[in-house]
Amino acid sequence: MARFPLPPGSTLGILGGGQLGRMLALAAARLGFDVAVLERDADSPAGRVAAHTLVGAYADPVALEQLAALASVVTYEFENVPAEAVLTLQRLGVDCAPGPEALAVAQDRVSEKQFLNASGVATVAFASADDADEAVAAATQMGAPLLMKTRREGYDGKGQRWVEHAAQAGEVFRALGSVPVILEAPADFVRELSIIAARGRDGATAVYPLAENHHEGGILRRSLAPARVSPALADEAERIAARILKGLDYVGVLGIELFEMRDGRLLVNEIAPRVHNTGHWTQDGCEVDQFEQHIRAVAGWPLGPTAAVARVEMLNLLGDEADAWARLAREPETRLHLYGKREAKPGRKMGHVNKLKAL
Amino acid sequence: MARFPLPPGSTLGILGGGQLGRMLALAAARLGFDVAVLERDADSPAGRVAAHTLVGAYADPVALEQLAALASVVTYEFENVPAEAVLTLQRLGVDCAPGPEALAVAQDRVSEKQFLNASGVATVAFASADDADEAVAAATQMGAPLLMKTRREGYDGKGQRWVEHAAQAGEVFRALGSVPVILEAPADFVRELSIIAARGRDGATAVYPLAENHHEGGILRRSLAPARVSPALADEAERIAARILKGLDYVGVLGIELFEMRDGRLLVNEIAPRVHNTGHWTQDGCEVDQFEQHIRAVAGWPLGPTAAVARVEMLNLLGDEADAWARLAREPETRLHLYGKREAKPGRKMGHVNKLKAL
Repeated sequence: MARFPLPPGSTLGILGGGQLGRMLALAAARLGFDVAVLERDADSPAGRVAAHTLVGAYADPVALEQLAALASVVTYEFENVPAEAVLTLQRLGVDCAPGPEALAVAQDRVSEKQFLNASGVATVAFASADDADEAVAAATQMGAPLLMKTRREGYDGKGQRWVEHAAQAGEVFRALGSVPVILEAPADFVRELSIIAARGRDGATAVYPLAENHHEGGILRRSLAPARVSPALADEAERIAARILKGLDYVGVLGIELFEMRDGRLLVNEIAPRVHNTGHWTQDGCEVDQFEQHIRAVAGWPLGPTAAVARVEMLNLLGDEADAWARLAREPETRLHLYGKREAKPGRKMGHVNKLKAL
Repeated sequence: MARFPLPPGSTLGILGGGQLGRMLALAAARLGFDVAVLERDADSPAGRVAAHTLVGAYADPVALEQLAALASVVTYEFENVPAEAVLTLQRLGVDCAPGPEALAVAQDRVSEKQFLNASGVATVAFASADDADEAVAAATQMGAPLLMKTRREGYDGKGQRWVEHAAQAGEVFRALGSVPVILEAPADFVRELSIIAARGRDGATAVYPLAENHHEGGILRRSLAPARVSPALADEAERIAARILKGLDYVGVLGIELFEMRDGRLLVNEIAPRVHNTGHWTQDGCEVDQFEQHIRAVAGWPLGPTAAVARVEMLNLLGDEADAWARLAREPETRLHLYGKREAKPGRKMGHVNKLKAL
């Protein structure tokens, strides 16, 4: 097992070669680390900035052995890492951060909400269903409209549908693939907020100022940070973050999506055990961004400062929106971050801009 | 030949795999470019964060052909690029920035000073000598003490010696290797300053605020920026930068080392046709740092803003000073930049820190 803090020159492993892996790899390089990326695609955004690319599925035993031989610690750019991959790495003596318990909680929407409620963190009312009859029964008891989501997988609005009438629940269950689901009561929120939180190996925590987020079709379009919120709300968000980090014995950066309700309460919508799209504003709004913070945490380094030094409007560049790079590059207040993806499919996250404003 | 502005996804070539190449590669990646590094060492700081590493000497025709096949434009992390390498690349249809004329001027201390004076930019008095007798004659005419430097090569104080008495000049000439030299009158300066300047392919220029620099044993230890200077001095430095950039028909970032004389004049000590150690403060003191600025310029993008958003004290970490990373990582105002060099030889630049202060 590695000894912490990991010295510069050590190799950090990253499962996943997308934009989050890429920005993690760039942050790791700045601190003098080498990076090894495990990714199915030999030509990936993260692989192209990493010292080593291992090509394989995330649970490929040969690739994991190669990764274990290189890396002192392994982290991930997404939550749906197969549990067996983490167990294999641990068996090979490699530390994985965040740990398998945090992944297990975040991978299952029912476990996630159960964990949150048990930690004293409020969520919308929910029920689980494993077959169509259970889905109808739960929907009837809770009352429609309801949001039905697969318990596992799904991101950017995929794997979820509205149930307008309880009687439809069986049909929606089948449309989602007849897999275990969660039914969620609708949240009468006034704003979607998020908080990016970090916890080090020493148990120290740090949170960034809240971001206000705007989604379209389930995909994040825009974040504004620091969000204009009352000190009481900011305190409450911090308390929520602290409970979650501690409850998961978490190491690394965690994204927490929140609903700000009409009555002023904060409900947690979901947690992501990784750097988070709503935290991209920290790249140009904070001295230490979420990517360096995550590297610091998993490497056992002390956490860095999280105060905002600028106000940022973060806009995702989806699909061919990234073709506007030449115009965006001319805007003096706009910092451009492009991911090096080869193909601009509709809705695909190709990059983002951080537009700077005075605090 | 490439068409400008180069779209993201294009490959930029970098000759040289050290820390400057590494930080250029990281900046290029942020803008969505791929990087190909040509470097003698298969395991280099820049190569480890680049999509492609070509192993070879800088003038290796096979390696240059491989680079030309990959890269739309080639740039360099140091001024002593063999002229034949640039000519080979150009013959293969690859644009090189900065161009061969700028490199030729910067590679020869005599051509450099002649160019500066011809451009209306003041330097110390100087003479050239090709043999020991010429050296003695020049030293006798100018009067000792004098600084004798090889015309070519030499960096961080290497390749130069003081001539205390004119009669010693022959001996010093031989000690420097009996190669063509320049003799420079001592500069009675009160401060060493530098200005990082950039010029785009459209001829637009941008300069960063002046830095105040402190050397030890010929090696930069510390920069403070923005330096406290009068508006008149800042204007004069900008005028000097504009003349040099225009005179060289320059594309990219250029470092200009200045002497602030007791009488208030600014003399140019030397120019470096590349990103510069005294510009590292821009990474944490400006919205667009010198590395992104250089990438923008060579890619034909518009230049970014250069105003300071923080005051920075940049400290080089030489040799085993980088072993203090764990302590430095605990300082909230300190941003750490480590280069991933494998071996900490005495005096070797292993990393730097930017200590942030309010403007």
